[in-house]
Amino acid sequence: MRRLLGGLEAGGTKFVCAVGTGPDDVRAEVRLATTTPARTIAEAIEFFAGQAKGTPLAALGIASFGPLDLDPRSPTFGSITTTPKPGWQHVDLTTPLRRALGVPVTVDTDVNGAALAEHRWGSGRGVGTLVYVTVGTGIGGGALVDGRPIHGLVHPEMGHVRVPHDRTRDPFDGTCPHHGDCWEGLASAPALAARWGREAEALPDDHPAWELEAHYLALGLTSVVLVLSPERIVLGGGVMTRMQLYPAVRRELAALIGGYLRTPALGAGIETYVVPPALGDRAGVLGALAIAGA
Amino acid sequence: MRRLLGGLEAGGTKFVCAVGTGPDDVRAEVRLATTTPARTIAEAIEFFAGQAKGTPLAALGIASFGPLDLDPRSPTFGSITTTPKPGWQHVDLTTPLRRALGVPVTVDTDVNGAALAEHRWGSGRGVGTLVYVTVGTGIGGGALVDGRPIHGLVHPEMGHVRVPHDRTRDPFDGTCPHHGDCWEGLASAPALAARWGREAEALPDDHPAWELEAHYLALGLTSVVLVLSPERIVLGGGVMTRMQLYPAVRRELAALIGGYLRTPALGAGIETYVVPPALGDRAGVLGALAIAGA
Repeated sequence: MRRLLGGLEAGGTKFVCAVGTGPDDVRAEVRLATTTPARTIAEAIEFFAGQAKGTPLAALGIASFGPLDLDPRSPTFGSITTTPKPGWQHVDLTTPLRRALGVPVTVDTDVNGAALAEHRWGSGRGVGTLVYVTVGTGIGGGALVDGRPIHGLVHPEMGHVRVPHDRTRDPFDGTCPHHGDCWEGLASAPALAARWGREAEALPDDHPAWELEAHYLALGLTSVVLVLSPERIVLGGGVMTRMQLYPAVRRELAALIGGYLRTPALGAGIETYVVPPALGDRAGVLGALAIAGA
Repeated sequence: MRRLLGGLEAGGTKFVCAVGTGPDDVRAEVRLATTTPARTIAEAIEFFAGQAKGTPLAALGIASFGPLDLDPRSPTFGSITTTPKPGWQHVDLTTPLRRALGVPVTVDTDVNGAALAEHRWGSGRGVGTLVYVTVGTGIGGGALVDGRPIHGLVHPEMGHVRVPHDRTRDPFDGTCPHHGDCWEGLASAPALAARWGREAEALPDDHPAWELEAHYLALGLTSVVLVLSPERIVLGGGVMTRMQLYPAVRRELAALIGGYLRTPALGAGIETYVVPPALGDRAGVLGALAIAGA
């Protein structure tokens, strides 16, 4: 029998709490609005404590927005650090949950969690060196090497890589409050909305926005491929529900790298190199279960 | 007693062969000109076979120029793939050495080898997630995660990441035959020479070349930091013998990332975050010994 686990997807607008063992066995789930840390964390504890009365939990995983302090030697290990979300700077998610529930608590970034979940149950099965990139309100990336999430100094923050920005083609300044025209500043959903004057969802499929979007997505992925050499990239998030982006991103990525790295993955095999997620918007909470050790 | 190992640094102009156990115990070493594959490999075999007559070798490591095929499932595993060096495309280095010497042979990129050597004996001791970047004839990067070199799809090829290129400030087109103004195309030693009309070595310390060089080096390192999150970066190669570059690169890198990732390593601690190599031009052959398992 598999161990019963708790998973907490801690997001900027909602906390999704679940108990189960994996995608086919989620036994209970609740969505909580992200209000104040004290209140939201108390509500999460209440849910997990109630569930544990039936079958005790073996462990809890937290897949959180960030940036996070993931250095086990740090006194603030497991805390959110510099988020712009009011009230949530320097909030320690792990200690109150560990104390209240009396189980091991593991925390990681939401995108490292999503990478783990796609690796375990989704589009990254059998792929040890895997990157998960989400393109939505922001751009974030998680990465596994040999099946394990990487942390290093902090954790990957791929959305803020710099990409070439041809202001003749695209005079838009970018939306990132820190960096202006970094990858996220040029290619997130808010960047699309600010550049074109309407929400990304409202842009028709034949709008020139999408060609430019594919160009920027491929430029950022070029850095991901050349620095980390992933065996596959799972590309998800709200913007990527526009399926026409996949062939366009693949084509540009192959052109940007191709000729130099002659590998089938960047040629005839690119359709299985840059792929949509299999878990969709379940990657967050399933990522939390995966972080717990599912 | 430590095992006696062979190390082969396979470079585009020379092959350096050594036997020993580490930097303080290199018992014999020879430098061979890189001519034809058949001749150069035969000379390397002759050296190692001669040395092994005294004390048998336990293993051989090869730190090679590339790109390399490092996929153990590939029929061309261990071969050089698309190098521009005439005659060296698709050359299998490992099989002839393994057959002739009858020892396990492990091959990796020269920069992964240098990262391993700096980790074991140099500026990266105790740092599990380490990047080694060399800036010289080209720009190359190797990376360790949890002390092990990463390969993934191929291996890192950091020199070819794209960086923002402000043609008003710097109208130079770049020297990369594949990508023009990628990182290597803008910031390698040949790029410096082509942009300024004289060899990098001949540019005085107060030449504006160095400020621009530090700018590009920091831009490329931004991608490295945000994608891989290394705990330290060892920055070496011929161009980095110009020591004034270190403070300038550190300053720009902190400015490019700082404010977003608030970690001491990118603030007050940046002097120990971007560091010179300790092994200098010995990183190649010592890297080969480290690859062998020293």
